[in-house]
Amino acid sequence: MAPYSVMITGANRGIGLGLVKEYLKNKEIHHIIATARDPNTAQHLNEISDNRLKVVKLDVTCDDSIKNAYAEVEKIVGEKGLTVLIHNAGIFVPYSTKMEPNRATLIKVFDTNAASAVVITQVFLPLLRKSATAYGKDEFSPDRAAVIGISSGVGSIGTNTSGSGSHGSLAYRMSKSAMNSVLKTMAIDLEPEHIFVVSFTPGWVRTDMGGQNGEISVEESAEAMVASFGQLKKEHHGGFFKRNLETFPY
Amino acid sequence: MAPYSVMITGANRGIGLGLVKEYLKNKEIHHIIATARDPNTAQHLNEISDNRLKVVKLDVTCDDSIKNAYAEVEKIVGEKGLTVLIHNAGIFVPYSTKMEPNRATLIKVFDTNAASAVVITQVFLPLLRKSATAYGKDEFSPDRAAVIGISSGVGSIGTNTSGSGSHGSLAYRMSKSAMNSVLKTMAIDLEPEHIFVVSFTPGWVRTDMGGQNGEISVEESAEAMVASFGQLKKEHHGGFFKRNLETFPY
Repeated sequence: MAPYSVMITGANRGIGLGLVKEYLKNKEIHHIIATARDPNTAQHLNEISDNRLKVVKLDVTCDDSIKNAYAEVEKIVGEKGLTVLIHNAGIFVPYSTKMEPNRATLIKVFDTNAASAVVITQVFLPLLRKSATAYGKDEFSPDRAAVIGISSGVGSIGTNTSGSGSHGSLAYRMSKSAMNSVLKTMAIDLEPEHIFVVSFTPGWVRTDMGGQNGEISVEESAEAMVASFGQLKKEHHGGFFKRNLETFPY
Repeated sequence: MAPYSVMITGANRGIGLGLVKEYLKNKEIHHIIATARDPNTAQHLNEISDNRLKVVKLDVTCDDSIKNAYAEVEKIVGEKGLTVLIHNAGIFVPYSTKMEPNRATLIKVFDTNAASAVVITQVFLPLLRKSATAYGKDEFSPDRAAVIGISSGVGSIGTNTSGSGSHGSLAYRMSKSAMNSVLKTMAIDLEPEHIFVVSFTPGWVRTDMGGQNGEISVEESAEAMVASFGQLKKEHHGGFFKRNLETFPY
């Protein structure tokens, strides 16, 4: 089996782009929707020639943009709905305890990385429900309906040993812990509708955000995660996982 | 021993007021600073006649208000600095997965409950450092310098079994998970300066927020927490605890 349709936010570079390319390898998927703030300048996505790929304009922090994207995606997927919604868009803005306070930065990072995942999930619920209903069986499957958050190892509170660290991860940590909190909460709320909700950490990946000292390439991370997404079973519902599907502590 | 000075935000009612009253029982404490958005209408605080109690105006979401409060507190505590800073101010606004999306609510709750704790800690660091330095020993003690967050059991992601629940806890859960993330991060950042940082959950308390079905009274919760604050040892630094100092999972 394969999901009928997949939507990935923040897909013009980094892990988002890697996920798009990985999903395109699966010829059974009908629609791969890659969102970007400005499709006209989404160079990497526009270079891919595969008519299953649709680039949709989406600024995750703008509610009107989310509504417009919903209308576009609805036209693409039709009555079968959206199978997999991947919250990948995110920003990192340096913030440390010993810097000057900057409330606007804390809010901006939370808004982009956590609040947006809430609002987008809520707006796209009708399309996820269509997919969950069309699947027609009383079971959980990642090919039925799924919301996947690309979180981060630094979203884990208990395993934090470096504090803000040399890169200033305080605001980012807060936002990813909040994202994990939401995904767990939504997992419980959406369980009766058989909509899978899980959180993943991609590892330390060589991207613009992760820097060039990252431990793995985008391709390795994306390949492992997409393989794990396909192996999700009910026991994983509401969990937080490494890219290889090992449980990660909160 | 007892802390020289204690500051409690959001202290005109509920758990904040309970903490003020509990600390006032300890005659060795020199200054108890209770903050409220509007001291003129802070009826419960104004009814207390104890000249160690100072009511200071503070809107935790307003950076100018935080700076003004800092100047007032500096005058009160002088060169000995601030021993204990308790982040208690917080709001609960109902939010559930199946409600209409409302980004402004998500941000407001995060701003009040989590971002404010970051900014206030950062602004008050000079006074906490004075206290930590004056203590003069190479050890951790809650009577030296401490930042305590009044978090919540629903800030725990792993123990969430009710989702948004009938009260709509989604936004509140996000904010308290983010608060726990910050406190752990700041604990690591401030460890070299011997400033204690911990997170507590007060239990389900009968307050305006907790409702009248809460399991314990404000007095029981405040008494247990203040007793636990006094028992903190280095091993508790950076932890998340129930009011009786049992570890709470993230």
